[in-house]
Amino acid sequence: MSLTPSSAASSVVHILQQAKAASHRLAMLSADQKNQALETLAHLLIEQMDALLAENAKDLAAQEGQISASLYQRLKLDAGKLTQLAQGVKDVAQLPDPVGRVLQRTLLDDGLVLEKQSVPLGVIGIIFESRPDVIPQILSLILKSGNAVVFKGGSEAAHSNRAMMWLVQEMNARLPWLPVGWASLLESREAVGEMLQYPQYVDLVIPRGSNQLVQSIMAATRIPVLGHADGVCHLYVHPSAKVEAAIPVILDAKCQYPAACNALETLLVDVAMAQRLLPAFAQAAEVAQLQLKGCERTRRILPQLEAATEADWRTEYGEKVLSIRLVDGLSAAVEHINEYGSHHTDVILAEEAAAIDAFVASVDSACVFANASNRFADGFRFGFGAEIGISTAKTHARGPVGLEGLVIYKYIVKGSGQVVADYVGAAPARQFLHQPLPCAPAVPCGTS
Amino acid sequence: MSLTPSSAASSVVHILQQAKAASHRLAMLSADQKNQALETLAHLLIEQMDALLAENAKDLAAQEGQISASLYQRLKLDAGKLTQLAQGVKDVAQLPDPVGRVLQRTLLDDGLVLEKQSVPLGVIGIIFESRPDVIPQILSLILKSGNAVVFKGGSEAAHSNRAMMWLVQEMNARLPWLPVGWASLLESREAVGEMLQYPQYVDLVIPRGSNQLVQSIMAATRIPVLGHADGVCHLYVHPSAKVEAAIPVILDAKCQYPAACNALETLLVDVAMAQRLLPAFAQAAEVAQLQLKGCERTRRILPQLEAATEADWRTEYGEKVLSIRLVDGLSAAVEHINEYGSHHTDVILAEEAAAIDAFVASVDSACVFANASNRFADGFRFGFGAEIGISTAKTHARGPVGLEGLVIYKYIVKGSGQVVADYVGAAPARQFLHQPLPCAPAVPCGTS
Repeated sequence: MSLTPSSAASSVVHILQQAKAASHRLAMLSADQKNQALETLAHLLIEQMDALLAENAKDLAAQEGQISASLYQRLKLDAGKLTQLAQGVKDVAQLPDPVGRVLQRTLLDDGLVLEKQSVPLGVIGIIFESRPDVIPQILSLILKSGNAVVFKGGSEAAHSNRAMMWLVQEMNARLPWLPVGWASLLESREAVGEMLQYPQYVDLVIPRGSNQLVQSIMAATRIPVLGHADGVCHLYVHPSAKVEAAIPVILDAKCQYPAACNALETLLVDVAMAQRLLPAFAQAAEVAQLQLKGCERTRRILPQLEAATEADWRTEYGEKVLSIRLVDGLSAAVEHINEYGSHHTDVILAEEAAAIDAFVASVDSACVFANASNRFADGFRFGFGAEIGISTAKTHARGPVGLEGLVIYKYIVKGSGQVVADYVGAAPARQFLHQPLPCAPAVPCGTS
Repeated sequence: MSLTPSSAASSVVHILQQAKAASHRLAMLSADQKNQALETLAHLLIEQMDALLAENAKDLAAQEGQISASLYQRLKLDAGKLTQLAQGVKDVAQLPDPVGRVLQRTLLDDGLVLEKQSVPLGVIGIIFESRPDVIPQILSLILKSGNAVVFKGGSEAAHSNRAMMWLVQEMNARLPWLPVGWASLLESREAVGEMLQYPQYVDLVIPRGSNQLVQSIMAATRIPVLGHADGVCHLYVHPSAKVEAAIPVILDAKCQYPAACNALETLLVDVAMAQRLLPAFAQAAEVAQLQLKGCERTRRILPQLEAATEADWRTEYGEKVLSIRLVDGLSAAVEHINEYGSHHTDVILAEEAAAIDAFVASVDSACVFANASNRFADGFRFGFGAEIGISTAKTHARGPVGLEGLVIYKYIVKGSGQVVADYVGAAPARQFLHQPLPCAPAVPCGTS
C-alpha cells in the first residue's frame, strides 16, 4: 500500500464537502453491507499488521525519550493490540443496526401514515491525541451507524495514523460501493480550526483527549460537541450507610484507575457519619497509598491531613489524591455536587431508600448511583456493546454514549395526495385520526 | 397585581443562577403538582383578563401606525385569544408527563440495576418577537416538562409581557411549592446577549421569530439552539406522478399559508414530466394568483415566466411566489434539495414505490414526505399535542418538536456495594449479566 493521505491533496473544505456527499450514500447502505465493511477492516488490521507496525515504529523512534512512559505505551502498537482491535471491530458488526429503526408510527388519517425513523447524523469530526488505535475503533462505530468521518490525530502518531488510513483506501478498493471520502485524515492544527468553522458540513465533533483539548474545541466551534471537559465526581456517605461496606466502594471509586474521568475526586461525608467513618477510612487510605486532603472540619478529626482549599473542590486530580468535605445533611451534599461538580457521575452510599431517592432525583448529573462505585459509569459496563465517549452535555446524548449517539431521526409521511386545507378552518372537511400504529421493522428481520 | 419585573431588580447572572436553582426543584415536582400549576395558570388568564387587556392596550396604542397590520394583529390580545390560550394550557395538562419515564432497565449483575430515566433539561431561554401569547404557551410546556425558563420578548410588547409575568408572580403566591425564579423576563438586548454567554446556566435556547433573529442567536452562543433559520422547502414531481393529483398538492404546499416555514419555495419537475405538468400547472397558478419564476428549461415551456436565478434556489419567499426548476431524474432532484435546501421539509409526488423509497432515504431533511403537502410538517398535525418549534438541527431534536425536546435522561444505578475491581482483569471475580429488564413505570399509574 502507498501513502497518499487525503489531506495532502485536498483543501479542508473539499474534504468536508466530499464527506458530506459520502454521508448521503452511507445512509443508504444495508446492514449487511456495513457489516461486510467491518469484516474487511478487521481482516486488514491482521493482514497489514507488518506495515502498520513498521509505520508505528517510526513514530516510536521519533518520540523515544521525548514523551512520558505512559504516553509512549499509548502510542505503541503491537500484535496483541492489533488482534484485539480486529476483534473489537468484529464485535461491533454483531451489534444491532442503529439505523432504519422505526421509533414511532401514527395513522394521521386514512392513507396518511407518519413514521419516525432513525437515520445517521451525517459527518462526525474526531479530534484525538496520541493513541493511533482510536482510528479503527472509531471507524467501526462510524461505519455501523452509517456516518462519514474526518479525523485529526496527534502529530506524534502521524506515521501510524496515515498507515491506518491506508486501510480505508484498501477498503474502498475492495468494496467499490463504499463512497469516496467517507473517512479522511486532517494533519494540521490549522486544518482542524478550519473544520470547526463548518457546521453546514460537520454534524458532530467528538474530542478525545485531555481536558484542555476538549475545552479548546468547545470554545472554538458552534458544531455540537459530544464529550466532557472534566470529571469532578463525588461520593456522599449518608448517615444510614454502613461503614464497613462504604470503605471498599470509596477506595474502588478513587484508586481502581485514578486517571479515568469517572474516578472519584471529592468525598462528601455527612457530619453525622464523620466520627464513625473517617478514622477507619484514613487507615485504609494509608494502606492504599492514597493521599487525603480535608476541609477544616475533617481536619478536626484527622489533623494529619493537608488542608483542602476552595480550588480543590473543582480539581480533577487524576491520581491517588482525594479531597474530603464534611456536609450538613443530604441537601448540603446535593448543593455541593450541583455547584462544584462536572455533572458526570455522583454516588450516594446509604441504606435509607428515601435518602437514595432524594439524592437520585436532585443531583443533576449524567450518572447518579447508589451503593456502587463511580467507576461503573462506562458504556461497556452498562452493556451498550460500544462506547463513543461520555457526555456531560444536557442535549442529544448524556452519560456513556453508545451507537445511538451517532444517529438522529427523520419524519416520513406517506400519503395519497392529501392537502392541509382539508384539515383546517371552522368546518374542516377531514379530521386527523392520530392513531398509534405498531412499529413494524423498517428492515427485514435478521439483517440487523 | 403590581408590576415588579424580575429583571428590573436583578442582574442577568443572578436571574440565571436563580433559574438554575429553581430547575433542580422543578425536576422533583410530581405530575399532579405540575398539572395543578397549569390549571392555576389557565384560571389566571381568565381571572386577570381585564388587567392583561389593559396592559396590551398600552402596547397597541404605542405601536399604532408604526407597524404593519399583520404585526399589529399578532401583538393584539382579546377575550377570544385569552380564552383559547387558557384552553391550550389546560390541554397541555392532559398530556402524559414527559419526566420520570423509564426508557431502559438492565440487570448489570445480581443486586446491581441500571435505569435510564427521562429528566428535565434544566433552564430554557426563549427569545421571541411581538406575540405576547408566546409567554403562556411556553410557560405551559416548560412547566409540564419540569424546566425553568428565562424569556426575552420584543420591546413593542413590553407592557403585555410584563402583565403575563404578573401571572407567574401570582402562581408563586398561590402555590408556595413553586420555586422562586422559575420563570423570568429579560427586557433588554444587552441582557439577552449576556444570557447567551452562560452555557453553565442555560441548557437550551429557543428563538421564535424571523430568520434574522434565529441566525443572530445561533451565531452568538455556544448554548444548543432549537429552531430553524429558514425553510427553503421543495416538492419534486417524479415521472410516475399523476398530473391531476399533483396540482392541488403543489398549490396547497405553496398557497395554504405562504408565510409558514414549511411552505413550498421551489418546485422541482422531472424533465420527463415537464410537458405534461407545466402548462396545466401554470393555468392553475394563475387562478390561484401565484407568481411563478422558472429556470431556463422551464421557460422554454412557459416563456411568460420571469427567470429564476441562482439566488432563487436559496430564497424563502414567504409569499405567493414559487420558483420552478427542471431536473434530470430523481438523483438530480435529491442533489438539488440536499445542496440548496434547509433540511426542513421536502416532498416527492410519485406512484412508483421504488422512487418514493429512494427519495425518502436520500433526502437529508427533518421531514420527507411522499404524496402529501409540505404543510403537514407540524407538531399538532403529527399528533404530538404540543409543539415547541421545528428544528433543522441534526442533534437532540429534529423536525416538529413536542415535549420530548425539553427533556433528556440520566442513568441511575442502584447497587449493594459493588466495586469495579471485581469485574476487571484476567480472571475477574464476577461477570456482568447485562440482562434487559421490563421498564416498570417510575411514577404510579394514573398520575401521568
